[in-house]
Amino acid sequence: MRIGIVGLGLIGGSLALSLRRAESRAQQGSAHATSNQSARRIEILGVDTNSRSLASAKRSGAIDLAAHPSRAPFVSCDLIVLCTPTPALLESLPGIAAQMHAAALLTDVCGVKELPTALGAAQKQIVFVGAHPMAGREERGFTAARADLFDEACVALCPAVGIASGNRAWSSAALEAVRALWSEAGATRFLTLTPREHDRAVAYASHLPALAAASVFAALEQAGASSRIARALAAGGFRDTTRLAADGTVGQAAVHNRFLPEVLRRVATSLNAFAAQIEDGLHSNDLAPLARDLEQLADRRRSMRLPPRR
Amino acid sequence: MRIGIVGLGLIGGSLALSLRRAESRAQQGSAHATSNQSARRIEILGVDTNSRSLASAKRSGAIDLAAHPSRAPFVSCDLIVLCTPTPALLESLPGIAAQMHAAALLTDVCGVKELPTALGAAQKQIVFVGAHPMAGREERGFTAARADLFDEACVALCPAVGIASGNRAWSSAALEAVRALWSEAGATRFLTLTPREHDRAVAYASHLPALAAASVFAALEQAGASSRIARALAAGGFRDTTRLAADGTVGQAAVHNRFLPEVLRRVATSLNAFAAQIEDGLHSNDLAPLARDLEQLADRRRSMRLPPRR
Repeated sequence: MRIGIVGLGLIGGSLALSLRRAESRAQQGSAHATSNQSARRIEILGVDTNSRSLASAKRSGAIDLAAHPSRAPFVSCDLIVLCTPTPALLESLPGIAAQMHAAALLTDVCGVKELPTALGAAQKQIVFVGAHPMAGREERGFTAARADLFDEACVALCPAVGIASGNRAWSSAALEAVRALWSEAGATRFLTLTPREHDRAVAYASHLPALAAASVFAALEQAGASSRIARALAAGGFRDTTRLAADGTVGQAAVHNRFLPEVLRRVATSLNAFAAQIEDGLHSNDLAPLARDLEQLADRRRSMRLPPRR
Repeated sequence: MRIGIVGLGLIGGSLALSLRRAESRAQQGSAHATSNQSARRIEILGVDTNSRSLASAKRSGAIDLAAHPSRAPFVSCDLIVLCTPTPALLESLPGIAAQMHAAALLTDVCGVKELPTALGAAQKQIVFVGAHPMAGREERGFTAARADLFDEACVALCPAVGIASGNRAWSSAALEAVRALWSEAGATRFLTLTPREHDRAVAYASHLPALAAASVFAALEQAGASSRIARALAAGGFRDTTRLAADGTVGQAAVHNRFLPEVLRRVATSLNAFAAQIEDGLHSNDLAPLARDLEQLADRRRSMRLPPRR
């Protein structure tokens, strides 16, 4: 089976490395097992415009074959995973789909699901299953990729569209194939969502955090005379709050989410309300109710279950 | 020399532990050294309303004496460090100052400096030096305290007020004593700032991040039908962006910062501008400029120097 991974950055590179890890574990397992079925060999085609990423991915054994997108043998792949940032992903999807063999499976890792799924549905001859693994790191590129990036991660999956969409068994087999891929990669939680459900929810879980982080960082940059002192004082709290601002790829997905503007406006209203409450509290010398609200919110945030830091 | 630490939570507890560590290092050093000057012994009085925190601090050796604030021998301390959350700190400052011996040194760790410094200046007979160590963790209380919390941290210091304020040599000796305390505790960077300079800058470095984090978390809580899915999808990005929302003490300091409302309104304006840009970009099918802006902001954020994660 040949898998094409387009974009060997943090996500594509980590996917390749995690599949290699799964393969080597399976081989170790079968060497000791009485079963005569040997571990299934997968062949990974790595596709990237950056020849240095291709070379290091090849050297590390993450991929078997390396190709520039303009010369990649997409027709030879049974499954292709699009792992480029959102703008490149949306632009390249139709051209790659057109080069795939009939009934091949195309999937992606894009942080929005409505736009790529609509594009996928419009392609003839292929099956498209949108996916979104919820994992990331501050560092980027193949050098930041790691085999355990998706361990215990949650992956959002969208129902199959394209050639399989009229056929219930085929559709569910396609969804299952993408689920199995991410399960091999280490993910343990799966959520099947419509693209609309996904985009609405991810606006809160990921895209609002990314643009709030960008706005907090931009405010410090534009703080005038206070900017230099603020940079010197900035410590772990500022580092964590603005961590997603360093990850341009989340921001690039965020701006393609049509549900995000309403959420951003709601948070803007909440920040303006905090501003008024602080002024009132300082004026009346009674900040106790606001301080208590923040304490209660802190309790609720501490009791929220979130993945541990790696 | 007897030091009183009022509030044995994360900050007060870590201060006690870090001073103990410095003491034991100095003792090891003097055992090997040819110098005949033995390590100076400090006695730490721990003060807290929570008898369990007092007991574990005593058991761990972090403090020598434990007392409830209503019965603490403040008069016996050469130096007292107020480490309670902002509302309690502001409320207790005058009463504690009134019990200290003449010319004793009072300092604090409060996240705002104008309000405690104004209170400190109004006390008779004591010297007050406001301080703010830039360090924290998600966990709270004495159980989260650690001796290395302030290692390589930056500490903001404000000029001495109170009885020493008319005397330049005395004022600078008081400031130096507080600097030396935090240097013993592991801090390596010091910034002497007026309370106003501090509060303006920390609005960007710490208080805006805290209230942005709170607003992002509150938005997810209020996401209606999307809230459950958003919670399931939330991963490292949401965790980091909202980390400060779990630390109620930063939020409690934040609401006492009179420079914060203007900063919050500026960020609200920036979020509304993002909302309009996304809608325009989706409508005109041209999100490239916005995506490029976020990429450039990400580059600048990655090149900002920030303390490493512990």
